[in-house]
Amino acid sequence: MKQNPASLSERIAISEKVTVFAPATVANVIAGFDVLGFAVEELGDEVSVAFTNGGLVTLDDVTGDGGFLPHEAERNIASLMVSQYIDQLRQRIRSGDLHTSRVSIVPESGLGVSVRLQKGLPIGSGLGSSSASIAAALMAINELFGAPLSIDELIPLAMEGERITCGTAHPDNVVPALLGGLILIRSKDPLDLVPVSYPKGLYCSILHPEIEILTRDARKALPEHIELAQYVRQSAHLAGMILGFETGNLELLRKSMQDEIVEPIRAKMIPGFYKMKEAALREGAIGFGISGSGPSLFALSKTKDCASSILEAIQTVAEKEGISSTATLTRISSRGARKVSI
Amino acid sequence: MKQNPASLSERIAISEKVTVFAPATVANVIAGFDVLGFAVEELGDEVSVAFTNGGLVTLDDVTGDGGFLPHEAERNIASLMVSQYIDQLRQRIRSGDLHTSRVSIVPESGLGVSVRLQKGLPIGSGLGSSSASIAAALMAINELFGAPLSIDELIPLAMEGERITCGTAHPDNVVPALLGGLILIRSKDPLDLVPVSYPKGLYCSILHPEIEILTRDARKALPEHIELAQYVRQSAHLAGMILGFETGNLELLRKSMQDEIVEPIRAKMIPGFYKMKEAALREGAIGFGISGSGPSLFALSKTKDCASSILEAIQTVAEKEGISSTATLTRISSRGARKVSI
Repeated sequence: MKQNPASLSERIAISEKVTVFAPATVANVIAGFDVLGFAVEELGDEVSVAFTNGGLVTLDDVTGDGGFLPHEAERNIASLMVSQYIDQLRQRIRSGDLHTSRVSIVPESGLGVSVRLQKGLPIGSGLGSSSASIAAALMAINELFGAPLSIDELIPLAMEGERITCGTAHPDNVVPALLGGLILIRSKDPLDLVPVSYPKGLYCSILHPEIEILTRDARKALPEHIELAQYVRQSAHLAGMILGFETGNLELLRKSMQDEIVEPIRAKMIPGFYKMKEAALREGAIGFGISGSGPSLFALSKTKDCASSILEAIQTVAEKEGISSTATLTRISSRGARKVSI
Repeated sequence: MKQNPASLSERIAISEKVTVFAPATVANVIAGFDVLGFAVEELGDEVSVAFTNGGLVTLDDVTGDGGFLPHEAERNIASLMVSQYIDQLRQRIRSGDLHTSRVSIVPESGLGVSVRLQKGLPIGSGLGSSSASIAAALMAINELFGAPLSIDELIPLAMEGERITCGTAHPDNVVPALLGGLILIRSKDPLDLVPVSYPKGLYCSILHPEIEILTRDARKALPEHIELAQYVRQSAHLAGMILGFETGNLELLRKSMQDEIVEPIRAKMIPGFYKMKEAALREGAIGFGISGSGPSLFALSKTKDCASSILEAIQTVAEKEGISSTATLTRISSRGARKVSI
């Protein structure tokens, strides 16, 4: 049976600490610009939260960010999401929308939370770096309070986090980071998310070239208008991708993984892009493209050997272009943000 | 065992006659502009062909066209397709691409074919009227020759027929008319057609209002460019439709059957369109839209009763607008062009 929520004075006795891992994500999946994203295995961020007596949300550790992230609690997205979550929890309890029996500790005024962020994926990489921090922070703080909100209720908060970090409340990274799997954003307003099935054996080769592309800049480079004929071709490719994933028809997937709208523009920001694409396809990639707004690149393939050869081939091209890069061999993952035992 | 092809002198003894029915089709299925079409049951055209000694393709009967179609063999699309088919057959035999053992009668110079066309669907209706004639004519003449070409080989000829009748070689009516079912035109060049599964129990209400919209004019009214944001929304709807059809998720299908690009333009040509749409959705339609380039309208629904109420409701709206209309209660059909016994 559910216990009554612990009072402020009892909370240190509980002394709970929760650590949550949230995965990196690939958004803008080829023809699925702004509508399709998936989570990957292993690569991701970890956020730990624990109650304190401080009355504040504090950011007590940030590692793995190479010094690139703000370390002030009011500016780092992980601690910021924790604060926003607590504000919302208070508000919902106050408005009677959420009964305190659902929370294990009531967020009273003296309550503090210590936040620690361990970055496990490169910042500004196009792999949903901020989304992973947002998803991990939200699930961690929700778990710390006894999971009073459902994952679906965390999504609007997560999208607000995206708005804070990149200017627009895009769900295509943060939703797969929370839920896992391959997700179709069927509609943003009202939000409608549809999980898409996919062949479980697919490998994903990810290369992160060490060049900088800011999401805001990458978005600015996009055209405001496209030709109707382009729309028709690209929407048919997306439809083919969806069918290919859903039915496991890899040949259909291979033919459909084409993007003539966004790729030609963003490819210009990545030296050697088309050479890498050629190399990846030559090595047997089912599809190759830019992850999110880049610069990371990804390829899907059927076998681990193939995924590995692809990585080697595209990393060699990158080297020839004088670009250092980090290669990751992973898979599409059905798992989103989750508690980890430390 | 395959017989040797009959000589010219033997052909009358064979005195074969073939009649083929090809169904009406709904193209531009809501968000599937230019990429999605399906065949329906019952409604369609019949083409009969028989060998003659005349040395020519003759058009010996056209019925059900209300006098609107050309009755000269060189101008009517049914007889024209028969001629084109025979030309191609000759060419392929001559070039050695097709061995005569595959044809039951060699199309020698004295060979004639009599063509009869029975229109079973209204012309200029947006229901693939010319496609039905083209598909029926091609399959009929192919069957008459012992089916030397596969259905896939008939498709390029059928698209050429579309080019002749409406100016562009659109496959989205003529392919479902030939193959049946719900077809995704994943790519026109190279042509790639993907059958999409769909829930077998779906009903389709079709209303043909007696107003004239020419396909050429309807296409002219379309914008050359669309906003990128519109593209994103609409492509997500198409993806949702594809998933909804494929997985039989009618609720997803219902939410996804939205078209903000083509419908607002073409709706203007159909008086009372939005009132009809409202009425159809109120009666429980899963989706409602313009078939092809109109003026016919279609709605999908789960039960026969629902399909019937929809028809009644939209026909009443049409009447109030002073428009006569013909209502047809049908289904998506898995069957395309096929031989019929007369």
